[in-house]
Amino acid sequence: AGPREVWKKGGRLLSVLLAVNVLLLACTLISGGAFNKVAVYDTDVFALLTAMMLLATLWILFYLLRTVRCPCAVPYRDAHAGPIWLRGGLVLFGICTLIMDVFKTGYYSSFFECQSAIKILHPLIQAVFVIIQTYFLWVSAKDCVHVHLDLTWCGLMFTLTTNLAIWMAAVVDESVHQSHSYSSSHSNASHARLISDQHADNPVGGDSCLCSTAVCQIFQQGYFYLYPFNIEYSLFASTMLYVMWKNVGRFLASTPGHSHTPTPVSLFRETFFAGPVLGLLLFVVGLAVFIIYEVQVSGDGSRTRQALVIYYSFNIVCLGLTTLVSLSGSIIYRFDRRAMDHHKNPTRTLDVALLMGAALGQYAISYYSIVAVVAGTPQDLLAGLNLTHALLMIAQHTFQNMFIIESLHRGPPGAEPHSTHPKEPCQDLTFTNLDALHTLSACPPNPGLVSPSPSDQREAVAIVSTPRSQWRRQCLKDISLFLLLCNVILWIMPAFGARPHFSNTVEVDFYGYSLWAVIVNICLPFGIFYRMHAVSSLLEVYVLS
Amino acid sequence: AGPREVWKKGGRLLSVLLAVNVLLLACTLISGGAFNKVAVYDTDVFALLTAMMLLATLWILFYLLRTVRCPCAVPYRDAHAGPIWLRGGLVLFGICTLIMDVFKTGYYSSFFECQSAIKILHPLIQAVFVIIQTYFLWVSAKDCVHVHLDLTWCGLMFTLTTNLAIWMAAVVDESVHQSHSYSSSHSNASHARLISDQHADNPVGGDSCLCSTAVCQIFQQGYFYLYPFNIEYSLFASTMLYVMWKNVGRFLASTPGHSHTPTPVSLFRETFFAGPVLGLLLFVVGLAVFIIYEVQVSGDGSRTRQALVIYYSFNIVCLGLTTLVSLSGSIIYRFDRRAMDHHKNPTRTLDVALLMGAALGQYAISYYSIVAVVAGTPQDLLAGLNLTHALLMIAQHTFQNMFIIESLHRGPPGAEPHSTHPKEPCQDLTFTNLDALHTLSACPPNPGLVSPSPSDQREAVAIVSTPRSQWRRQCLKDISLFLLLCNVILWIMPAFGARPHFSNTVEVDFYGYSLWAVIVNICLPFGIFYRMHAVSSLLEVYVLS
Repeated sequence: AGPREVWKKGGRLLSVLLAVNVLLLACTLISGGAFNKVAVYDTDVFALLTAMMLLATLWILFYLLRTVRCPCAVPYRDAHAGPIWLRGGLVLFGICTLIMDVFKTGYYSSFFECQSAIKILHPLIQAVFVIIQTYFLWVSAKDCVHVHLDLTWCGLMFTLTTNLAIWMAAVVDESVHQSHSYSSSHSNASHARLISDQHADNPVGGDSCLCSTAVCQIFQQGYFYLYPFNIEYSLFASTMLYVMWKNVGRFLASTPGHSHTPTPVSLFRETFFAGPVLGLLLFVVGLAVFIIYEVQVSGDGSRTRQALVIYYSFNIVCLGLTTLVSLSGSIIYRFDRRAMDHHKNPTRTLDVALLMGAALGQYAISYYSIVAVVAGTPQDLLAGLNLTHALLMIAQHTFQNMFIIESLHRGPPGAEPHSTHPKEPCQDLTFTNLDALHTLSACPPNPGLVSPSPSDQREAVAIVSTPRSQWRRQCLKDISLFLLLCNVILWIMPAFGARPHFSNTVEVDFYGYSLWAVIVNICLPFGIFYRMHAVSSLLEVYVLS
Repeated sequence: AGPREVWKKGGRLLSVLLAVNVLLLACTLISGGAFNKVAVYDTDVFALLTAMMLLATLWILFYLLRTVRCPCAVPYRDAHAGPIWLRGGLVLFGICTLIMDVFKTGYYSSFFECQSAIKILHPLIQAVFVIIQTYFLWVSAKDCVHVHLDLTWCGLMFTLTTNLAIWMAAVVDESVHQSHSYSSSHSNASHARLISDQHADNPVGGDSCLCSTAVCQIFQQGYFYLYPFNIEYSLFASTMLYVMWKNVGRFLASTPGHSHTPTPVSLFRETFFAGPVLGLLLFVVGLAVFIIYEVQVSGDGSRTRQALVIYYSFNIVCLGLTTLVSLSGSIIYRFDRRAMDHHKNPTRTLDVALLMGAALGQYAISYYSIVAVVAGTPQDLLAGLNLTHALLMIAQHTFQNMFIIESLHRGPPGAEPHSTHPKEPCQDLTFTNLDALHTLSACPPNPGLVSPSPSDQREAVAIVSTPRSQWRRQCLKDISLFLLLCNVILWIMPAFGARPHFSNTVEVDFYGYSLWAVIVNICLPFGIFYRMHAVSSLLEVYVLS
């Protein structure tokens, strides 16, 4: 095995270097295009994104053709990768992105004569890219490819980079809109936002290119409200592509694995109904608060204060409850004797890293708020609410992360610690060369110790579980559903445009508008992503417990 | 093993959460203190840093006392952790930091009456902290602690956070100085820098608090030039603390490991002398270029252009040579049949991550430069040099990283692939619970296959190595020494204040001063850290090959 013993990490390294360079180039152009003073136009950004999407689409088609022709290319499938809720969410967000592309095409077609062709081409190419990529991820998310390793690594990384670039462009676009709307008029936000859009989008054309017709206005408003779905689509696709990238060239010992596809019947069985009912109540109240807030803030300025008090009060109640519930979930685990699952699992490692990393965004905003409130004056009711909100935000992210991460590391239900072997060093390792297989075969196979098949597990649950452990499982299911619904409403509010950070004057006065806008616009996208990712993780926790 | 089978990752998670929160609080205060408009003063930052250093010192003393009393607390030592050059560098930079603290105390004592006490207390506490921490890292860098796990994780993370906060404060301080010096006078940089320092440091005091005496001036200038060493000290300490943190609770199969302490005699044996000689030549020329550049740029503005041409020309030659040499090193590896080292090694994993991560800083600056030069006008000689410089910078980082990372994954010399077993899954795993030890003992011990002891290796080298492999080893040693010296000179230039990014007008005109200053001031510290880290990695490559 002399020349074949090529260093496999080399291919990974190459693909990471490619991705880093492409991403930085895209980052440079996108951030340059966001500033009016810089001579980089948004058409440059559109052209780059379109070219990247075309290349990625070509690679995906090549990959699909190859794996269809040669089924031996995918000898293993990772049971943990691409669970059904992630793929379902991807399809849902993909459909919303397609609708957004229709609206965008319609909007830009309304003043075709004074736009460059790339602006109409871009949404069309994006639609093709979204359709092909969604199909690709639906079909191949679990693949562990074993042919053309280097090409597959590079292709996956390039597609991942394309999605991240689309995400960055969307986030920057939204931030520019938000700051335009703030600077042009503080009181009449939603109307000013539309006007500034028109000006921002038409740097070349004159007044003849204004979006004046009613159809055009509808297109424009529609595509603005569909942005959050496009953002989430890109991030979902990125996480799935990253797991695929980690799985390239991986050897798995037990091919089937334990797949927990929940049947629709069991989805609302086995809970006390307290969690879902309380969660739904908070969800509905939250939606009402969000609508009241948006209406009052976009009206005249006199009612902004009242809107903020309502908004903060709701958030404090919601955050306080989720903190307590997460904490009680962690306490339940202290009495739970289920074995920990120590197997290698790239999906879970990524989930944990993303939960911890994305929480940094909201942490940072909260710490800046705390410093501003504590050091600034005066100390009125709103400042107190703001401080409580920021402190609870930190506590909630911390305790929720601890609960979710511990949940993800629990073994399947019914697997009591004495019944399973805690660690099998010969299982589920990523072998970096083929020789290692010989070493593997030298270890005793021990088929009885390999993770039991799904049917065995269900039997084990039926036999082993005592009334008390049954009660704990129901509690955990309630907790995860409650947290899930709360995270959905906490996602909706910032994702669809609630920005108390700017309506509130404490931080703006303390840091100055430009500094505070930079902080919020960089950190908030991560905070929004955290909510969405927590929802998908909590769904997994619900199914696993 | 019911209640003992506690989830070990929980302790790590807790310590990471602690570190993240403390770091974000420090980050908020430090960045707030950097802006004049924000009502956070530098005394607040000093107070926070002093409190953190005191706490970290207390924990270190507690740790040292405990391990001295109970030697059973450290059953294993990681041979890869804390190599001698890293600890030597730490002591060197620590001594420079102590000198800086003396200068700083002298400077602030010169106008004692109009300073708050914390500004004089801070360097004194820092000196104590540096002495104790350096001793602690020198003694315990290789420890794999097995008592008080949670406390040790949290203590190490807190000390790491303290070092990172000191690093951040130093970097922000330097950036503020640089931008003050730029804005107050573009032509007379070094003089203006001193004046602005005085104003920046005395926000409360009037003219009576000016640093007018000659002694005070010397103190001030001295401490400004010792900053880079303090920055590197904090980063070195951080990397060593991180490796210690990773090693807490780790079980190692082979206790002694292979330690490659190079004897002074062998350090300059076995090279062709071409690498070191050429490297030294470039180093001396580089120093001369740096001095010429600094003198000409700080003089009147007419000679700035000439200085930039000299600076860029030297850098292009240096970067071009290092790119070619790295590339040839990678080509040599294509013919090298030494086995790859696949063992788990937290030190190496961290090294690779830091090399890749820190390179992002210089990548980002280069991409912004490229966009500015390509999109901007006019295209003169200086723009061409700038473009070549940026492109070569990207190429050099890419190829040098590939060379270093591949080198770090090579096995020790003389270990031909057919002579060693490629992978032993039962070796060097981090077992996450004590039960795993039973599994370990079930595996055959195979003492013959465990990595050979140093004396065996040297014999093996003497016996196995053919003339051709000997020639390759000499080549690799030359290459690593040449790259090392080039990286040292490329570290010195930006670390001691060369900023062609601002002397050159292309990017400043294209992006505007404030945006470009933000980009450079955030990215350049990582670029500087990359050079230092590459030097320590190349030293390891030299010893290993």
